[in-house]
Amino acid sequence: MISKTPLGGNFFEDFKLGQKFAHGAPRTITEGDASLYIALTGSRFALNSAATVAREAGFNRIPLDNLLVFHIAFGKTVNDISLNAIANLGYAELKFCAPCYAGDTLEVCSQVIGTKANSNGLSGIVYVHSQAFNQNHELVVSWKRWVMVNCHQPLSERPEPELPSLNRVLGVKSLWIPDELTFNHWRDNVSDHQLTANQLKSGQWLDHRDGMTLNDSDHSLATRLYQNNAQVHFDAHKMRNSRHGQRLIYGGHVISVARALSYNGLGNAIWFAGINGGSHCNPCFAGDTLYAASQIMVVEELDTARNLSAVRLRTFAFKNAVMQELQPFYDEQDGRLKYHPQVVLDLDYWVFMPTQIASDA
Amino acid sequence: MISKTPLGGNFFEDFKLGQKFAHGAPRTITEGDASLYIALTGSRFALNSAATVAREAGFNRIPLDNLLVFHIAFGKTVNDISLNAIANLGYAELKFCAPCYAGDTLEVCSQVIGTKANSNGLSGIVYVHSQAFNQNHELVVSWKRWVMVNCHQPLSERPEPELPSLNRVLGVKSLWIPDELTFNHWRDNVSDHQLTANQLKSGQWLDHRDGMTLNDSDHSLATRLYQNNAQVHFDAHKMRNSRHGQRLIYGGHVISVARALSYNGLGNAIWFAGINGGSHCNPCFAGDTLYAASQIMVVEELDTARNLSAVRLRTFAFKNAVMQELQPFYDEQDGRLKYHPQVVLDLDYWVFMPTQIASDA
Amino acid sequence: MISKTPLGGNFFEDFKLGQKFAHGAPRTITEGDASLYIALTGSRFALNSAATVAREAGFNRIPLDNLLVFHIAFGKTVNDISLNAIANLGYAELKFCAPCYAGDTLEVCSQVIGTKANSNGLSGIVYVHSQAFNQNHELVVSWKRWVMVNCHQPLSERPEPELPSLNRVLGVKSLWIPDELTFNHWRDNVSDHQLTANQLKSGQWLDHRDGMTLNDSDHSLATRLYQNNAQVHFDAHKMRNSRHGQRLIYGGHVISVARALSYNGLGNAIWFAGINGGSHCNPCFAGDTLYAASQIMVVEELDTARNLSAVRLRTFAFKNAVMQELQPFYDEQDGRLKYHPQVVLDLDYWVFMPTQIASDA
Repeated sequence: MISKTPLGGNFFEDFKLGQKFAHGAPRTITEGDASLYIALTGSRFALNSAATVAREAGFNRIPLDNLLVFHIAFGKTVNDISLNAIANLGYAELKFCAPCYAGDTLEVCSQVIGTKANSNGLSGIVYVHSQAFNQNHELVVSWKRWVMVNCHQPLSERPEPELPSLNRVLGVKSLWIPDELTFNHWRDNVSDHQLTANQLKSGQWLDHRDGMTLNDSDHSLATRLYQNNAQVHFDAHKMRNSRHGQRLIYGGHVISVARALSYNGLGNAIWFAGINGGSHCNPCFAGDTLYAASQIMVVEELDTARNLSAVRLRTFAFKNAVMQELQPFYDEQDGRLKYHPQVVLDLDYWVFMPTQIASDA
Repeated sequence: MISKTPLGGNFFEDFKLGQKFAHGAPRTITEGDASLYIALTGSRFALNSAATVAREAGFNRIPLDNLLVFHIAFGKTVNDISLNAIANLGYAELKFCAPCYAGDTLEVCSQVIGTKANSNGLSGIVYVHSQAFNQNHELVVSWKRWVMVNCHQPLSERPEPELPSLNRVLGVKSLWIPDELTFNHWRDNVSDHQLTANQLKSGQWLDHRDGMTLNDSDHSLATRLYQNNAQVHFDAHKMRNSRHGQRLIYGGHVISVARALSYNGLGNAIWFAGINGGSHCNPCFAGDTLYAASQIMVVEELDTARNLSAVRLRTFAFKNAVMQELQPFYDEQDGRLKYHPQVVLDLDYWVFMPTQIASDA
Repeated sequence: MISKTPLGGNFFEDFKLGQKFAHGAPRTITEGDASLYIALTGSRFALNSAATVAREAGFNRIPLDNLLVFHIAFGKTVNDISLNAIANLGYAELKFCAPCYAGDTLEVCSQVIGTKANSNGLSGIVYVHSQAFNQNHELVVSWKRWVMVNCHQPLSERPEPELPSLNRVLGVKSLWIPDELTFNHWRDNVSDHQLTANQLKSGQWLDHRDGMTLNDSDHSLATRLYQNNAQVHFDAHKMRNSRHGQRLIYGGHVISVARALSYNGLGNAIWFAGINGGSHCNPCFAGDTLYAASQIMVVEELDTARNLSAVRLRTFAFKNAVMQELQPFYDEQDGRLKYHPQVVLDLDYWVFMPTQIASDA
């Protein structure tokens, strides 16, 4: 039984455990979307940039950037899930399960896996599991997220919370490796001679150095490209009366810009395999300049025959200041992280990298 | 005999009844243009978004959005017709006559069908009939428009006006239905479970709710994409000394944003069939936030075997205020409409919609 | 032996005569890039706009705009060559050597052909020869440029300068003509009936009339599309403390906008064959409005059988003023050109044009 969302979206009371949504506006992703993604983010990762490099890595064609795929899939869920959201609270268990190519069509569905009313009775948290499938009904990307959603009217009684069990980290063995992917023929220069997995050490920090100033057109072009219709990103007239007084930049744009900045140092972080968790710690506005830094969490050789290692990274994006001015990015108080107000993103994710450069072997 | 337009464009005196123009810069429309159109407008109509949905509607591939096709075709006419225009006064009899696909090349020609000097002798109205053909010489879109054009020098005598006869409304039977188009397999969810024709009532109003703030880059990217070279949209230095003190947003961008906003409520208004008439009631500038509302004018079942109805809509776009603050959008004084100064578009057009959802039948 | 550039780029001391770089992030150029190029510049040149016109000119498909190809190729060189550049001083001997089509992949390499320390010991000039090859190892574009690059630390002694010999002008016989290119079937209207080579006179000036205001998003989208990672174009936070107090617009964007503006008058300057030299005379910032004017330097019939002439042009771009307010664009003092502060570009280049319109012959 598929739920129908009324115009104006669902409120907290409308969500029921087990409820299913078949989201609207399926989307064929094209080379045009891929070009725009480069123009909007400045991404330089070689696998998504050049057909020659993609072939050397085992693919017949350029696989689309996994984050572009995710943002488009995510955008589909907004109308049913988060049109009345106050805040996007977190992600878990985001896993890419198939390469996506120009010409593939995504259709996305979600199921409610948890609900929890807030004590004020004015809002609650909704947990959903979303899945994007291609035209061959193959699962392309799967993720869980939780959002705080307004109530339609104050709750007269507070229903029993129903909480899903979520993994804090995707086990490295559970990550999906594309059949075709190999780093046996990876060339040192295509990623500007950057670090390979065997040169990384757990705990090590990388300052990605470059800055990127976000313009109003950039973030709204990106968010419209993803057909994400959350009003907070587009309607400056209405947002003038909000707490922030202006449009909020879509958090996914911040993730993509941070990932693009991470090329300096992590140019060999070729395959974005999944997200363990992420926080949009503080809001971003047009005019802000983003910087990024990453900490290496885990380095694990996954497949010797393919010269392939998994690396768990924690990338922070921060604004209008360089790394040295802000660190430490957060305090831990009573087991909760309290972020520096200029930190805007804390993203914990897995990438696949060449273990080493074959010619250096 | 094809007329040659000098650098700097034609003035009112240069236009003669029956005169023909073969416009420059033919254009192949690509998937890249389609991606940009989504990024610039946020359009979510499923037929133009997903190859799977297009196939379910009878097409082999995604047909390009008809408004993208129109804006590109329109852009071609500017150099010969409206480079010295003061105002774009109106449209009539705009009809789409063939689907256009990525890879198709449009070539556009126009003929002067009327002229009328203004009483001040400084300008006049030029009526043209324009037609865009694809590479197989099939007519893709045809329309009439009239523009007020400056005179080169004050007219010594005022020539006899020559006025074309124009239909105020395209007869529903004269609309062109793509051979392949069918709504027999239309799925409820791909348009977010929105209204079908049999749920609409003549006279009914729909508030499309969402707002879209227009940025300088958005509208100038759109207008350049259409290769429309009207200077009022691009040259802020010159426009600083104009009545408005700044660049004007291309009216076609306003039409497209209003159409994209209308997805909330009219997500099933799948095929944009033609325009009866339209007014750019007031100018739009960067920073303005657009909203839209539509009135249902006529609902007529056109083809039962294809589950297809024609719906005549009147969509208003307005800025920096919600519907309730502005209605009524216009006064009628002495038979002329006088619009609220925040109303920027009054568009009267035909769409094709599913009569009902087959599974609900 | 291929040099490896460290994070943070090379400084003047790092460059050695004969040194070779194989630049990172090879790039497949697509139809999406071509659409963005039109949206970013407003270019209307018919050969790059329509497949029908391309076929009439002898090509099987639309060749990508040579300037788009150049900007992408140029972008690849930034990380190794000019990340620590103070100024891009000049270009020479830029020659296109093969058409580039959507789907082609460029890989770019450079060799150091000269170095010269500045007398202050704080910076020096590096001369490089760069070449872009397609996936079939064919040379697509080759050029020389020289940049002023910071020293890592003040030089203790000033090494002997090593200066390359550079041609001030590409000989017309050395220009590469695509095998397939012919103007025998060129139609008058596709370029809006503009001038053919036989209508141009050496010394003649053309005022391109139109203006184009540059927005922050436009230039940063363009520069990111080219994957050019020079920080001065992107990081407004850091640039606030620079001499200019704001982001600089990438000079290549200025070249492309000037070329697009030159369509008015030079719409028949179909094939951009090469650059003899160019200066970015003054910086450009968001909000500036660009205008352009060209002087015809040389007109030479190259191939009668193909109705093809070479024309050497000198195009000036200037900002926030029309041609008449600024001319002369420069003074010559002691053999050096001193430009008007509103002149931003002086570009000396070759184009191929129809000698005449066949139907006029």
